[in-house]
Amino acid sequence: MKPNIKNIAVLTSGGDAPGMNACIRAVVRTGIYNGINMFGVLQGYQGLITNNIIPMDARSVSNIIHLGGTVLKTARCLEFKTDEGMDLAYENLKLHQIDALVVIGGDGTFTGARRFAQRHQINVIAIPGTIDNDLYGSDFTLGYDTAINTVIEAIDKIRDTADSHDRLFFVEVMGRDSGCIALRSAIACGAEAVLLPERATSLDELIKQLEAGAATKKSSSIVIVSEGHKQGGAYDIAKHVKEKFNHYDTKVTILGHLQRGGSPSSFDRILGSRLGYAAVNELLKGNTQQMVGLRGNDIKLTSLDEALTEHSFKLESDLLEMTKVLSI
Amino acid sequence: MKPNIKNIAVLTSGGDAPGMNACIRAVVRTGIYNGINMFGVLQGYQGLITNNIIPMDARSVSNIIHLGGTVLKTARCLEFKTDEGMDLAYENLKLHQIDALVVIGGDGTFTGARRFAQRHQINVIAIPGTIDNDLYGSDFTLGYDTAINTVIEAIDKIRDTADSHDRLFFVEVMGRDSGCIALRSAIACGAEAVLLPERATSLDELIKQLEAGAATKKSSSIVIVSEGHKQGGAYDIAKHVKEKFNHYDTKVTILGHLQRGGSPSSFDRILGSRLGYAAVNELLKGNTQQMVGLRGNDIKLTSLDEALTEHSFKLESDLLEMTKVLSI
Amino acid sequence: MKPNIKNIAVLTSGGDAPGMNACIRAVVRTGIYNGINMFGVLQGYQGLITNNIIPMDARSVSNIIHLGGTVLKTARCLEFKTDEGMDLAYENLKLHQIDALVVIGGDGTFTGARRFAQRHQINVIAIPGTIDNDLYGSDFTLGYDTAINTVIEAIDKIRDTADSHDRLFFVEVMGRDSGCIALRSAIACGAEAVLLPERATSLDELIKQLEAGAATKKSSSIVIVSEGHKQGGAYDIAKHVKEKFNHYDTKVTILGHLQRGGSPSSFDRILGSRLGYAAVNELLKGNTQQMVGLRGNDIKLTSLDEALTEHSFKLESDLLEMTKVLSI
Amino acid sequence: MKPNIKNIAVLTSGGDAPGMNACIRAVVRTGIYNGINMFGVLQGYQGLITNNIIPMDARSVSNIIHLGGTVLKTARCLEFKTDEGMDLAYENLKLHQIDALVVIGGDGTFTGARRFAQRHQINVIAIPGTIDNDLYGSDFTLGYDTAINTVIEAIDKIRDTADSHDRLFFVEVMGRDSGCIALRSAIACGAEAVLLPERATSLDELIKQLEAGAATKKSSSIVIVSEGHKQGGAYDIAKHVKEKFNHYDTKVTILGHLQRGGSPSSFDRILGSRLGYAAVNELLKGNTQQMVGLRGNDIKLTSLDEALTEHSFKLESDLLEMTKVLSI
Repeated sequence: MKPNIKNIAVLTSGGDAPGMNACIRAVVRTGIYNGINMFGVLQGYQGLITNNIIPMDARSVSNIIHLGGTVLKTARCLEFKTDEGMDLAYENLKLHQIDALVVIGGDGTFTGARRFAQRHQINVIAIPGTIDNDLYGSDFTLGYDTAINTVIEAIDKIRDTADSHDRLFFVEVMGRDSGCIALRSAIACGAEAVLLPERATSLDELIKQLEAGAATKKSSSIVIVSEGHKQGGAYDIAKHVKEKFNHYDTKVTILGHLQRGGSPSSFDRILGSRLGYAAVNELLKGNTQQMVGLRGNDIKLTSLDEALTEHSFKLESDLLEMTKVLSI
Repeated sequence: MKPNIKNIAVLTSGGDAPGMNACIRAVVRTGIYNGINMFGVLQGYQGLITNNIIPMDARSVSNIIHLGGTVLKTARCLEFKTDEGMDLAYENLKLHQIDALVVIGGDGTFTGARRFAQRHQINVIAIPGTIDNDLYGSDFTLGYDTAINTVIEAIDKIRDTADSHDRLFFVEVMGRDSGCIALRSAIACGAEAVLLPERATSLDELIKQLEAGAATKKSSSIVIVSEGHKQGGAYDIAKHVKEKFNHYDTKVTILGHLQRGGSPSSFDRILGSRLGYAAVNELLKGNTQQMVGLRGNDIKLTSLDEALTEHSFKLESDLLEMTKVLSI
Repeated sequence: MKPNIKNIAVLTSGGDAPGMNACIRAVVRTGIYNGINMFGVLQGYQGLITNNIIPMDARSVSNIIHLGGTVLKTARCLEFKTDEGMDLAYENLKLHQIDALVVIGGDGTFTGARRFAQRHQINVIAIPGTIDNDLYGSDFTLGYDTAINTVIEAIDKIRDTADSHDRLFFVEVMGRDSGCIALRSAIACGAEAVLLPERATSLDELIKQLEAGAATKKSSSIVIVSEGHKQGGAYDIAKHVKEKFNHYDTKVTILGHLQRGGSPSSFDRILGSRLGYAAVNELLKGNTQQMVGLRGNDIKLTSLDEALTEHSFKLESDLLEMTKVLSI
Repeated sequence: MKPNIKNIAVLTSGGDAPGMNACIRAVVRTGIYNGINMFGVLQGYQGLITNNIIPMDARSVSNIIHLGGTVLKTARCLEFKTDEGMDLAYENLKLHQIDALVVIGGDGTFTGARRFAQRHQINVIAIPGTIDNDLYGSDFTLGYDTAINTVIEAIDKIRDTADSHDRLFFVEVMGRDSGCIALRSAIACGAEAVLLPERATSLDELIKQLEAGAATKKSSSIVIVSEGHKQGGAYDIAKHVKEKFNHYDTKVTILGHLQRGGSPSSFDRILGSRLGYAAVNELLKGNTQQMVGLRGNDIKLTSLDEALTEHSFKLESDLLEMTKVLSI
């Protein structure tokens, strides 16, 4: 049975990610193409509560596909975790006669969306938008590809100067609970070693790897450190290594928030477009409390229940194995 | 049965593509890791015939993962199409006791590889390396992702200046027989229209689309033209459109060979690494006359016979459909 | 004597150039810092005539310093060349009590500004904003440095694939009357030859140069062609060369309007900031009918009269001489 | 009197800087063009002592103009500071009959060059190559422009995510004794505040500035911290600010060595070409113990004595003043 959906709103929530604007554009235009009135909610769930909701036409999303960040802004919102907050949000949606919601964000965003849809009469589709790639149900989350490209461009520059035998570069990348960015970046820039939150690589092990590299006359050594590593950040680890190897000149780069920004890669623009297009089409088919994600080359649905309870180890273990072989 | 492979050579052939160096590095290091002696052939099949073959160690592929082009060079080689050419090539391989060959390239490269392996006692694995994405058996060929990123970076710059209502920008991209680059670029840069070699879009249809855009007050119009389009290149099409719409100021960009170059994207570096790693592993398992390709997120084998005879329409038709919706 | 200036407007006119937004930001904020009410005119002189004039505060120019194009838009305006057009424009300025005008643009923009200031009681400072660097009174015009960087990034990519001896790449760059972009790009990318509108390089001479390069075993040849060259554009010249050297494989790239866009380089952002800052300060000192320009490292005034009548050959002849030596 | 120079060697020393390869290319080719035999010394002064000296022809510097780092490598060399080290170096130069030396580097490189030329019969011209711009005698040192561009590209990405009112981004840039990179980067990215080693900005002052920004509803605040700042690096300063403003969410990026790398900007490629070209021409005119530098738009000589004793405050104070106005 086709639902009678006439008005749809879209919002971005949580940390921003490159590709969110391409996704917003696709949501808005797919809706309009199908005769739906489209709305944008500013500053995530906060904007639902404060009624910061604006109508959007096809031109309102012109010339944004290539921009980093999100034109709808994002904010953390504790109030939406309360029943009172959700009720306020729902009242505002009613004011605009909004029947359905597309939310773009990460784990926290999905949790909020599920609780909201369970409490109130509103259809919700969620889109995985986070650079960390730490969501179940999509092989790649929106922003992940761009973030890796940002990291490797930075490391390519470091490699230019990494030409003496006794230099060690430590580069800290994002991913508090997920080593996805670290692992793919390590492969793509040919790093000598990578420290992941999911793996308890001891410093002794790291030092052994670096010694092996020195023995085969590597002209430089770059170590990627995921910010969530148990032995500390890049500074701490560099300090420990330096203590054991004081002839090494250790240098540290902390990439920080620059990994969240930048013009999205073609991959993320296309992924964002496909996910936004699919989200609206799924709402129009009557689906709700689902996420749309990329599986292989196809866009597939996963229920929010499944997405939020599955915590399978997402790190690609075959790639991890390959790293060892290719960094000889 | 495991083959007794001791020496493997790698070559690149045909048009070069970003990611080839990452792939060469992976082939060489995976071989060395497995105790194989590795060789590089310079200038493709030409180098086999002229015995331009050099030993490669792990350090010989250091600091190349981020470079465009191919350190092994490439060349067209008519002589390899003859039996005499192939026999000369085989003799040179024998000189170095080379048992197996990894070739990286496109359609022509694969054809040569298959004929060579059928004529002589040599195991061959082929790796799809071409920006055009026009090979069966791999969802993405090596260099395709980088080429699309190169195109959209160029078009983003054009969009900066595309702010008056009466301007039309025509951008010609590569892909003589394949509109893959054109289609994905069009989505990723939000183009108003795209002309593909696979689709006989008439100029009338194009003009209708442009008029529709003007009616909805689009602030700019960018048309992507695949170089193989039947009605001519971007210049010809711009001229025809101009004749009908002489109030339009038409501007043309021909991207040309810059689409083949540039530092590979993370996607292509990882893809090149995985394909190179897989190619050697497959040879060591005894496989031959196969290509390794990306299907979904996995690396899979396809026989060269199948790869060279299948000519299914590769253009993603769901994406083509989506383009119309998103360019309103 | 200090003038009694209370309201200043800023506009961009002619072709847009990277750095214009940095310049607008500097004009607006320097005015506000000095207690002036600031206005922006949309779409250049056209906006003066149609009264498309908006007030601007410090926040209205936030987050634009890094954007290509111009947030104030630009347009060609024939009407402003007439007395009636100028009178209408002046009336609109009076409506807003605007006492002074900062115009950013090229030759045509300056001509309009001078005539307007001569006819009406309005103080005007002009800022040289054009990628072509074809204005007297500023060693570098706004956008020139970014345009050169854009060109060399494109050519670097071409060079990746330029590895066979019998290939010739022709790249057409902007500069109808001025070879400045062509010359500096040629040096910066190590081109083998450059064809400038100011120099009547015959094709025979070009071919001699290319032959000399071939004799010294150059692995590639890139020829930069300025769009204003008397023997035609890159396509025509490539065709002629091909006729004489049919063993050469000639490839053509037409960069076109992408040279006008892109995020401005640090040089152009700083230059734009300095020129905008100086323009307002000069108005406040009582100066008018002047341009602000970069001479050496200093910002200096030149009268519009002088700027518009001087047509000295701006091409740096020492650099042209150097090109020959460095391309051996 | 023209000296009888037949053999010239070139080396790079100290920290590497983008543009060094463009400069090496110009030195080598200008020498060859003038009939000189050219040599390259590997790993700076170390290579003089170990006789790591190779002949260079015009092709040996092909396709390097766009590369970061230095193909001649660089190294620190304590031994060259001793008389014995210098004597060994001189003997090696004699072996190759090298009459003159071009050295590219910073302060330490210049000091070594002067002492060497004073002790031994060798003509020396020095070229200012350092990203820090901390040398007297050249308005811009080689690599400075590229480093600023690298910094602002990073900060542009941070700005994408800097959209909430209570976020403060601290970015640490290079320049232990010189705030040049910090100052120009701050202008070019529109930073809210900049902390320089040359200025004792107290934290109270910084906090006042940030409060003023908050009062005018700035949507984000970025503070550039030069690594040499007396109150510590970005982490320390962020920590102190956080203590006073615990409702601020502070984020830190340490750019580190990536600022030394990357493909040189057009400015640095042209500057490197001009300086290399001039260095050889000056040697051929008989000049020695001089540096070549950029003053305004011209290449001028400064004696090494003057360059090494002048320690005028190089920070552009007019730009510092402007920063305050433009960051309102």
